[in-house]
Amino acid sequence: MDVTRKNFTECLKSLQKVVKDASFLSIDGEFTGLDSPQLGQISPYDYPDERYQKIRTGSSDFLLIQFGLCAFRFIEDKQRYEVKSYNFYIFPRPYSRHAPDHRFLCQSSSLEFLASHGFDFNKVIREGISYLTPTQEASLRETLEKQHHTTMQFSSPLFTSPDGVNPVSSKGPVAIPDEQKDFVDSILRKISEFLEKNDGETLDLPVCTGFQRKLIYQSVRQKFKTGIHLQTKNGENKDRFIVCTRVSSEDHMKQKEAQKLEIEQLELEEAVGFTKVIRILSESCKLIIGHNMLLDLAHILHQFYYPLPPTYEDFKSMTRCAFPRLLDTKLMASTHPFKDKIFTTALGDLVKVLQGEPFKMPNVDISEGYTKYSVNSDQHHEAGFDAFITGMCFASMANYLGSFQQPPLATVQATSSLIEPFLNKVFLMRSPDIPYMDLAGVDLHPKRDHVFHITFPKEWKATDLYQLFSPFGNINISWVDDTSAVVSLYKKENASAVLKSLCQEGAAYTVTSFEKFKMADFSGEN
Amino acid sequence: MDVTRKNFTECLKSLQKVVKDASFLSIDGEFTGLDSPQLGQISPYDYPDERYQKIRTGSSDFLLIQFGLCAFRFIEDKQRYEVKSYNFYIFPRPYSRHAPDHRFLCQSSSLEFLASHGFDFNKVIREGISYLTPTQEASLRETLEKQHHTTMQFSSPLFTSPDGVNPVSSKGPVAIPDEQKDFVDSILRKISEFLEKNDGETLDLPVCTGFQRKLIYQSVRQKFKTGIHLQTKNGENKDRFIVCTRVSSEDHMKQKEAQKLEIEQLELEEAVGFTKVIRILSESCKLIIGHNMLLDLAHILHQFYYPLPPTYEDFKSMTRCAFPRLLDTKLMASTHPFKDKIFTTALGDLVKVLQGEPFKMPNVDISEGYTKYSVNSDQHHEAGFDAFITGMCFASMANYLGSFQQPPLATVQATSSLIEPFLNKVFLMRSPDIPYMDLAGVDLHPKRDHVFHITFPKEWKATDLYQLFSPFGNINISWVDDTSAVVSLYKKENASAVLKSLCQEGAAYTVTSFEKFKMADFSGEN
Ligand SMILES: Nc1nc2c(ncn2[C@@H]2O[C@H](COP(=O)(O)OP(=O)(O)O)[C@@H](O)[C@H]2O)c(=O)[nH]1
Ligand SMILES: Nc1nc2c(ncn2[C@@H]2O[C@H](COP(=O)(O)OP(=O)(O)O)[C@@H](O)[C@H]2O)c(=O)[nH]1
Repeated sequence: MDVTRKNFTECLKSLQKVVKDASFLSIDGEFTGLDSPQLGQISPYDYPDERYQKIRTGSSDFLLIQFGLCAFRFIEDKQRYEVKSYNFYIFPRPYSRHAPDHRFLCQSSSLEFLASHGFDFNKVIREGISYLTPTQEASLRETLEKQHHTTMQFSSPLFTSPDGVNPVSSKGPVAIPDEQKDFVDSILRKISEFLEKNDGETLDLPVCTGFQRKLIYQSVRQKFKTGIHLQTKNGENKDRFIVCTRVSSEDHMKQKEAQKLEIEQLELEEAVGFTKVIRILSESCKLIIGHNMLLDLAHILHQFYYPLPPTYEDFKSMTRCAFPRLLDTKLMASTHPFKDKIFTTALGDLVKVLQGEPFKMPNVDISEGYTKYSVNSDQHHEAGFDAFITGMCFASMANYLGSFQQPPLATVQATSSLIEPFLNKVFLMRSPDIPYMDLAGVDLHPKRDHVFHITFPKEWKATDLYQLFSPFGNINISWVDDTSAVVSLYKKENASAVLKSLCQEGAAYTVTSFEKFKMADFSGEN
Repeated sequence: MDVTRKNFTECLKSLQKVVKDASFLSIDGEFTGLDSPQLGQISPYDYPDERYQKIRTGSSDFLLIQFGLCAFRFIEDKQRYEVKSYNFYIFPRPYSRHAPDHRFLCQSSSLEFLASHGFDFNKVIREGISYLTPTQEASLRETLEKQHHTTMQFSSPLFTSPDGVNPVSSKGPVAIPDEQKDFVDSILRKISEFLEKNDGETLDLPVCTGFQRKLIYQSVRQKFKTGIHLQTKNGENKDRFIVCTRVSSEDHMKQKEAQKLEIEQLELEEAVGFTKVIRILSESCKLIIGHNMLLDLAHILHQFYYPLPPTYEDFKSMTRCAFPRLLDTKLMASTHPFKDKIFTTALGDLVKVLQGEPFKMPNVDISEGYTKYSVNSDQHHEAGFDAFITGMCFASMANYLGSFQQPPLATVQATSSLIEPFLNKVFLMRSPDIPYMDLAGVDLHPKRDHVFHITFPKEWKATDLYQLFSPFGNINISWVDDTSAVVSLYKKENASAVLKSLCQEGAAYTVTSFEKFKMADFSGEN
């Protein structure tokens, strides 16, 4: 089901229950870009905390613009999952003049990639659901309440008497400057006529400055006491003007002010928008499945929860707090007992492998009114579809774990202890020796004696590196920039030979052991 | 005429002549955003050089995605303009793996604004014309030529003999490591079979590493000398593999390499894309008209010419060099003899005013095949339409200047000395006392004795400022942030009274003369 701002409110009504009833949830996000080379180019030998920092500085300025959510509910009687998929379009439309006007990054290749998969950018910008972070919401709420308070003070009869002056700001009525007197008089005359004639409920005053509005507020209050209510509205081009409304009593007036506040609070509530979906997911404490989900997680937290914190440890605890049970199918697929049977873990390949022996896809029924996604259709990179496929892959792999049990289990549920080993470990991309970030524990810290940092002349190509290292067998090169790279030996036992013959001064290149290079890097030499 | 990558090459063919024949050109751009408050919030009392710096840091990361160009050609016989409008969609699609992958900023409110005027984002991302700056083009050209040089070296028979070794890199053939011998042998066997069988023109070798490719190149060369040509191609997922082609002679081989270089150079030529339009405009030295064109200019130069330079003076000379004759209709409309007759200079209002007495729109014929824009249609914020309207407004105002001549002139041409006073002055927005940037001269530097900088508690509102200054008459407030503002007096003669009574220590606010504040600001106190 595509969800835009047109059907979001409707959808939200049932979502809470759908999530509550789910056995597990799968998610996926699409972004306006992935990384900024200057701010955080990921590198294969990043430690998890370094990788986090690169994502925080290099990725978090991009925007999540589509969010896929798929609720899988296991029906015992039928031994089948009932599936409901949502494909949310998200866009930070400023909903009022106080609301934040986002600046965000895009990456050409990412937009082109999405476009080539049929992504509808017009839909996201025209119909995307808006959102606010809790911090933004609180600040807007405060602004609203302050405004209300000010209006109440201005419209209070006490305001005109010296006793009514707010002691904190020590402000009373302003003396009307000479050059404003004619203007104010003309307005008061207009209002008198309006009140006498008694036709029409409201009167729009002409656009004027903030100071003139203040003068109008206080003069009207002094002259008419009751019977009239004033409210500032926005015209075109951000012009502001006052609307006068006939009111029968002081109470009627207060009531109108209260109504106005209520409407504005409702509007704010609506502006919180998509953030509510994330709150529902978070509060459910359900198992949440993603595929290669680190970037999704980082974006979801940053955009709808709290800004990514400066330390990796705080990121871990923030994630645990928001989503206590996470599982990454890419990590699961690359771990025993799957890794020997699954050679490529890209989502599109994984779903194919898991349809064949010894695996089996779960039986599912797509609920009425939700998109009839199928594992064989080609809607990859639509977030709702990818979330669906991810959930299917998880269920298939989970069930496979049941086949080793005595007696074998046909279905392994999301709450089963069999999936515990995979929980809260998110896949670390392009990392040859640290497969995952452990969000609920201490990260791995493998030995890297066979890894070297090398700098060389700009003219060098991969072949020069292969040639330099050829006495020590095959190597793996990870480029840092065009004059440096990280090289690791397939034959780890040759590490000391490399140190002996290559780590010498005076050559066109410098080879340093990786650990030594990192130490220098951290101590600020770089 | 909408121009996308589908019809760009076609359109470019005739554009050179259209521009050459034009009497004047009008332009307009649409952007992904306008400004970043943190990086450069424009303020009403910016001096032109400050404003330039704010645009450079705060605006240049946004992207120009639609460019309107309108060529007006005056036909003497008919005393009418012949008009050709172009509406270019522009997007920096990375055209090859070496091409830059842009990261750019978007501003929510700007995208929403464009969307509300019917802007088609799918079209721009899917069909936008790509572009390269001269610097990018040169660097890609160099990469291409280097690659070609390397290939020629590898495929040269000399390479296999020690004499053929390039003395600069002092690299000869690599010794084949033991673990690669089987692999290389198997490849050589495959190629032998391919050459013997003589069916099919080409043979794709399996995907392998860069080092293995190097070994293949050199071994094939050693073993077969001639008769075969190798070329590396990209497979899926950036995998690279070698394609072998049968060739009859050494010359045939060189010819194939030359062909490849030629194709790649053509592709690069194509990738230069939209930049060529800007070059044509620049080289034409024609009068170029824009409406409130400072941001357009900055983006055009930054995106298609050279990065905006660090100093304002360099920006001026770069602009003069790229576009020696510019005219801004917003500035023209706010200058004598127009300013007394034209009260609002927003493009949509201006075009209405200029249709009535004492003005008159020029007679125009829209050329066959070009969009039939009309001054009364409502396509505002489509770049092509805005360019058209801007051109119409210019022609109308220019002709009005002719009415003061003896005898009156019905048509004032773009080359007339009557428009000289308006040349190369671009409108400065939100600037109460400096109407324009003078790109060809020294900027105005008005006295600002009646302007004050004030800091105050966060709780203060505009009314508090009006109240504080009320003894000195009406004021104009320009907010800097929520605890400071710039205030100017309508009654300049009260300036010294303000200094006397408000510039005192110990108050909840601090009032400083604007000049003094700027000096402190520049000297780094802020
Ligand atoms: N000197 C040199 N630098 C290279 C070479 N290949 C890649 N690099 C550098 O390494 C960076 C990353 O390259 P790579 O990881 O191969 O490409 P990517 O992962 O497709 O972006 C490039 O931008 C270059 O600066 C090479 O052959 N020679
Ligand atoms: N303290 C205070 N700050 C304000 C007030 N109005 C505006 N500002 C500040 O000035 C900034 C710019 O405001 P303004 O120029 O009126 O709005 P804009 O041009 O529509 O963005 C705001 O973001 C606030 O920080 C006010 O009444 N009191």
